[in-house]
Amino acid sequence: MKRIAILGATGSIGTQALEVAREHSSLVKIEVLTAANNAELLIKQALEFLPKTVVITEESKYQHVKEALSATTIEVLTGCDALNDVVKGASIDMVLTALVGFAGLEPTVSAIQAGKDVALANKETLVVAGEHIMSLANQYGTKILPVDSEHSAIFQCLSGESLDSVEKIYLTASGGPFRGKDRSFLAHITKREALKHPNWIMGQKITIDSASLMNKGLEVIEAKWLFNLSIEQIEVIVHPQSIIHSLVQFNDGSLKAQLGLPDMKLPIQYALLHPGRPTNSFQRFDFMDYPQLSFEKPDLETFANLRLAYHAIQQGGNMPCILNAANEVAVAAFLSDEIGFLEMSAIIEETMTLIPFILSPSLVDYISIDREARKIASDLVTKKKKVYQIEK
Amino acid sequence: MKRIAILGATGSIGTQALEVAREHSSLVKIEVLTAANNAELLIKQALEFLPKTVVITEESKYQHVKEALSATTIEVLTGCDALNDVVKGASIDMVLTALVGFAGLEPTVSAIQAGKDVALANKETLVVAGEHIMSLANQYGTKILPVDSEHSAIFQCLSGESLDSVEKIYLTASGGPFRGKDRSFLAHITKREALKHPNWIMGQKITIDSASLMNKGLEVIEAKWLFNLSIEQIEVIVHPQSIIHSLVQFNDGSLKAQLGLPDMKLPIQYALLHPGRPTNSFQRFDFMDYPQLSFEKPDLETFANLRLAYHAIQQGGNMPCILNAANEVAVAAFLSDEIGFLEMSAIIEETMTLIPFILSPSLVDYISIDREARKIASDLVTKKKKVYQIEK
Repeated sequence: MKRIAILGATGSIGTQALEVAREHSSLVKIEVLTAANNAELLIKQALEFLPKTVVITEESKYQHVKEALSATTIEVLTGCDALNDVVKGASIDMVLTALVGFAGLEPTVSAIQAGKDVALANKETLVVAGEHIMSLANQYGTKILPVDSEHSAIFQCLSGESLDSVEKIYLTASGGPFRGKDRSFLAHITKREALKHPNWIMGQKITIDSASLMNKGLEVIEAKWLFNLSIEQIEVIVHPQSIIHSLVQFNDGSLKAQLGLPDMKLPIQYALLHPGRPTNSFQRFDFMDYPQLSFEKPDLETFANLRLAYHAIQQGGNMPCILNAANEVAVAAFLSDEIGFLEMSAIIEETMTLIPFILSPSLVDYISIDREARKIASDLVTKKKKVYQIEK
Repeated sequence: MKRIAILGATGSIGTQALEVAREHSSLVKIEVLTAANNAELLIKQALEFLPKTVVITEESKYQHVKEALSATTIEVLTGCDALNDVVKGASIDMVLTALVGFAGLEPTVSAIQAGKDVALANKETLVVAGEHIMSLANQYGTKILPVDSEHSAIFQCLSGESLDSVEKIYLTASGGPFRGKDRSFLAHITKREALKHPNWIMGQKITIDSASLMNKGLEVIEAKWLFNLSIEQIEVIVHPQSIIHSLVQFNDGSLKAQLGLPDMKLPIQYALLHPGRPTNSFQRFDFMDYPQLSFEKPDLETFANLRLAYHAIQQGGNMPCILNAANEVAVAAFLSDEIGFLEMSAIIEETMTLIPFILSPSLVDYISIDREARKIASDLVTKKKKVYQIEK
């Protein structure tokens, strides 16, 4: 029985993780559920899975959750600090961090320091502080199990293989809803169009990141740290059908790929129940539904974010943290109709130019670097916003 | 240093195995080389690799080989029995059996009984007597490492995984030079057309088997024994580009595939140097050369041999042995222009009908079953031949 804490239980990954837990109720026990805002869903989940503890980080919703669960023995906590505490619970074997953005960093560090294995759905944690996180996991002897479908694919392909025998990896990208389009097209797309991912159903932030290819850029950085690779060993290949989730090329020239339907429940189950592969009722892949799998090079001119991400990790130091913070601000501004699609890349690039390079920030430094980058990116949003409104 | 005996050194697999040995001269030492007829090539190979022993099975060529190598300390042997002896040499770690057809069975048994690991390129051995061979390997604690690209792919995908977690496997098939054609087309094809495989350069027998899909049928049987699967767990899928060499679907619905250029040196190296993956100078796969990978169902009406193979292994017992013997006779008759392409299936099917079913033959029984099936198939060739000549 694997005892699990889910941080971000009401989001896309969190709810799918609970579907996995429902499917494998004899193998998985939910110990902790947390949510930022969605009190109603959290209450419903808590009443079904009866965890030891729930956290609603938004303090104004605490009373409501507390009262709704008053007939149970479930402990109800609130506030961001509660996340750092609940992951340390003695009864927990594994923490699934399915929080969105930079917010995932601190609880992940707490979980590792408490000796818990981490199923990591929060890629920003590794993007910002991958070197620290991996060495911390090494120091505390805990495992980091990737939940992203691409990294899960690489992880599965590496099963039984030596990391030293990796020549390179291919991260596959669907190309998003704007594959094949150029910058003049992107200049006029709407939020609604950008939120229509061709293959995957995901949260809003990651869906926009997929449309801009920033998601793939963040994944390149994540892969570098997870699998201890040089950036030159990581190639992005566009594969519109999202069936091959990624590939490893070994030193002998042989490649292994992991495939399946685009269904996040698969990599979630693999992370939660690794190395087991218990059977489930999820739909199976059929070649007759996908008689053609195709591949093309990514367009780095049109999708500048992927180029910026490569640039950030090639520089290293504080640059990926700045890239990530500026991107979070830019995506939020795009989602609230403050700026257009192309302004996102412009803001990220400018933010990266405006903050001085630091080669080796400490884990604590990242909090101020993140704050500074957000401040600068927000100012740039305000400026662009004016231009954008006039143009609009 | 892996010390290797190559049975069938002058054939397609044998010569490619020596390319691998040349590439990894610090890891591989050739101890034994054998050939049936090709004395000139055997002499050349012996002078380059300086094995302890060579065998030329054709006795009339013994003197010539002996004299050509008289300036060396290489021992020269002749006759079929010599194959069974040389595989037992104390200095040998692994035997690569790259003989064609039923002839591979006896030396493989000898090698296993001498406790040698076997790199098996002779699929007929497992087709005929898979159950015996696998239990013998188990009994003597030796490993059977597949060299066929499809089985190597499955073997690689299973690295680090439990055999119990396999839901099914897909064996990929190029479909051969006559993919998409019907029986009326096949009735008139020539030997030269059948010998033009679209992707792989191989020996004549396996090339004809590929054109008739018998090769895939034999591989289904081989896979059943190698990986302890039921026939219902093995599906053949046509993949004309021959890039995905086969796939495993696990109980959780996740699939793994092994990919690469259609180059037998890769699976040969993997078998010889497993579990290592030392780097080499072989050409690397590039998605831009294969931007489309496609898949289709095999046509069991047109390619009756694949259906016959499934039928043989579903029945079990002596049937796969009969299938294989009749096929060897039929392919030889086709290659010597005695019968047409479609007559091959007819001969195999009739031979399978004419010999009574035996559920559990012993290893010794197979020699007489094989002989009887060949006799019957040869008689059928003689009959068909007359009809064929008249039609021609």
